[in-house]
Amino acid sequence: MSTVSEVKAKAGLEDVVAGESAICYIDGDRGVLSYCGYDIHDLADMDHGVSFEETCFLLWHRRLPNRAELGDMQTQLDSARRLPEPILRAMKSLPAGDGMDALRTLTSMLGHYDQDAAVHTPQANYRKAVRLTGQIGSLVATWGRMAAGGGAIDPDPALGHAANFLYMLTGTRPSALAARAFDVSLVLHADHELNASTFAARVSAATLTDLHSAIVGAIGALKGPLHGGANAEVMKMLLDIGQDAGVERAGEYVRAKLARKEKISGFGHRVYHTEDPRATHLRRFSKSIGEKAGQPQWFAMSERIEQVVKGDKGLNPNVDFYSASMFYSLGIPIALYTPIFAVSRISGWTAHVLEQYANNRLIRPRTEYIGPAYPQPVLPLDQR
Amino acid sequence: MSTVSEVKAKAGLEDVVAGESAICYIDGDRGVLSYCGYDIHDLADMDHGVSFEETCFLLWHRRLPNRAELGDMQTQLDSARRLPEPILRAMKSLPAGDGMDALRTLTSMLGHYDQDAAVHTPQANYRKAVRLTGQIGSLVATWGRMAAGGGAIDPDPALGHAANFLYMLTGTRPSALAARAFDVSLVLHADHELNASTFAARVSAATLTDLHSAIVGAIGALKGPLHGGANAEVMKMLLDIGQDAGVERAGEYVRAKLARKEKISGFGHRVYHTEDPRATHLRRFSKSIGEKAGQPQWFAMSERIEQVVKGDKGLNPNVDFYSASMFYSLGIPIALYTPIFAVSRISGWTAHVLEQYANNRLIRPRTEYIGPAYPQPVLPLDQR
Repeated sequence: MSTVSEVKAKAGLEDVVAGESAICYIDGDRGVLSYCGYDIHDLADMDHGVSFEETCFLLWHRRLPNRAELGDMQTQLDSARRLPEPILRAMKSLPAGDGMDALRTLTSMLGHYDQDAAVHTPQANYRKAVRLTGQIGSLVATWGRMAAGGGAIDPDPALGHAANFLYMLTGTRPSALAARAFDVSLVLHADHELNASTFAARVSAATLTDLHSAIVGAIGALKGPLHGGANAEVMKMLLDIGQDAGVERAGEYVRAKLARKEKISGFGHRVYHTEDPRATHLRRFSKSIGEKAGQPQWFAMSERIEQVVKGDKGLNPNVDFYSASMFYSLGIPIALYTPIFAVSRISGWTAHVLEQYANNRLIRPRTEYIGPAYPQPVLPLDQR
Repeated sequence: MSTVSEVKAKAGLEDVVAGESAICYIDGDRGVLSYCGYDIHDLADMDHGVSFEETCFLLWHRRLPNRAELGDMQTQLDSARRLPEPILRAMKSLPAGDGMDALRTLTSMLGHYDQDAAVHTPQANYRKAVRLTGQIGSLVATWGRMAAGGGAIDPDPALGHAANFLYMLTGTRPSALAARAFDVSLVLHADHELNASTFAARVSAATLTDLHSAIVGAIGALKGPLHGGANAEVMKMLLDIGQDAGVERAGEYVRAKLARKEKISGFGHRVYHTEDPRATHLRRFSKSIGEKAGQPQWFAMSERIEQVVKGDKGLNPNVDFYSASMFYSLGIPIALYTPIFAVSRISGWTAHVLEQYANNRLIRPRTEYIGPAYPQPVLPLDQR
């Protein structure tokens, strides 16, 4: 319609390269996910891998920290974990409801109380990124605790980010296995290139809006069932099958669903055409954490469901499939599954926002107009 | 890097058609802006044009309403204008600060109290769109009033949306000229295709997140100085020149700025290569409202600045240039200029979100990886 040369993209901007980034490299054909050049399998190794705190440093600085740098970052995160009083008061006064709504509102509110709120320097934005990462873990854990009728628990400076989260949520310091398993799950979820919430954050940041505004937009996008909600759906399905139903029944249940052309949550991915490399680790945790919790059935059922869906539809499990049963066996309420995604992804979101600020151009595509022909006459009200 | 065929777009997705839309048609070369086929010059005509309420109906239904439909819409907007008590309490308790931060937080909070919050049917989403449009006018007017030390004023069911806004902000029922001028400015700002905030809303909505989440994302994007803040900058420049400085001084001031290679806010546009058709109407209002308010100098200075910038740089005024002086002469505080943009644009944002829901595909582009080479070895902490 315009004489300006326009490029018509595929729906959903599929396979459109929207810009350059030094943060995340995905090869969907080979099943490669890497942060700043580090393969996710190396980062997520149970024994020789890195912590969530090291992953944050990596995403923000493009290299792993040395011991002194890691200590500084732990200190900064630690001092951010205690939430401002007005935020705790607001959390108590919100009506019961969706955890993502609470996270969206309370993260927005954190912007009003941030000491760097009105400062837009690289240094201030970095401080805000670290602070928000510390705060969002506390927000989700404390909201989860209050939703279950408990009172807020102060963070323990002796614990890392993952262990603190589980402690503030449950009131009990987690086992080493539980803490490391949750830590690795935070590492696995930390970034995934231009997923919808990260892209929403970058579109927002490209107007040079403040970091809190961009992150609140990302939280809103993550809330969508096509993005963040799949592992909750997976767990609801497992519970619907029933904890005593057995492996055979799980297979029949899913076959019947497929026969009715129903979607099975937790399978397939826009980018991966092979196994989602994150699923490899979460499958292992689903097994080990499930056994430790005396709930081996969820993993067994999940494994059978994977066989059926892979066999019948050729679809691989994605990041959401085995995290469902793993989180369940860690004692995490299903209502927290999507908020927990944000506890990790805040690291990637902020890394992308800082990268956008550093080399910015307004993101403003066009539409192809398909509405009523131009021009339409404006008739007086009584002649319409 | 991937074997999947990828299309590399220009930075900022410039001239990339990201999807189809029946809402807004812009021809940047001919200076055409139209909503659903209706030319903005016809819609914004002072005497024969339409109201903001009719524009909302147009954007949501792709046609202008008849008298009965318009009456229904006015009734729906009217009943939305009275804000829930918890929102007014929260507004009072927020620390003094940026109006867009308040709008972001309070709009997010409105989601917790919306009776349709958890319902995602087309009918419920339409009700939420109407309700939010009514509520956001009240939010901004009441926030502006409280920021100036006043108390909340109840909406007047006898007044339309524009007049209600000015009444709730100032405590005085506006003149017919002021009401219609503000009404037309709401019509002019109602939609502008895939501007950054609308695109942010659609990226979010494409995850099938709820309407409030998508709109909160849009508000966050609008806050950015590359998007919403330009008319406030224009007015600050006019005040910096000084109300008694005179037309000659205004010209010299801007010439000196240009000589220092400084940007003049309110000029140029990514899409228009001619005069922004909205500026044509706002120029006229800047003159008439300024004269009525006994402040003709702002228009006179603006006109001279336009001559200089056009002559020296070949840039045309955009929507923000003359709205600055017009809003100022209407008695609207500068801190409200960007929030007022949202009072109007909520109609377009919601229209785009509803359109996205109706024909959805996840919006998920890719990046070109430019970071550290893959794979990097994960060294033990003490060897880094």
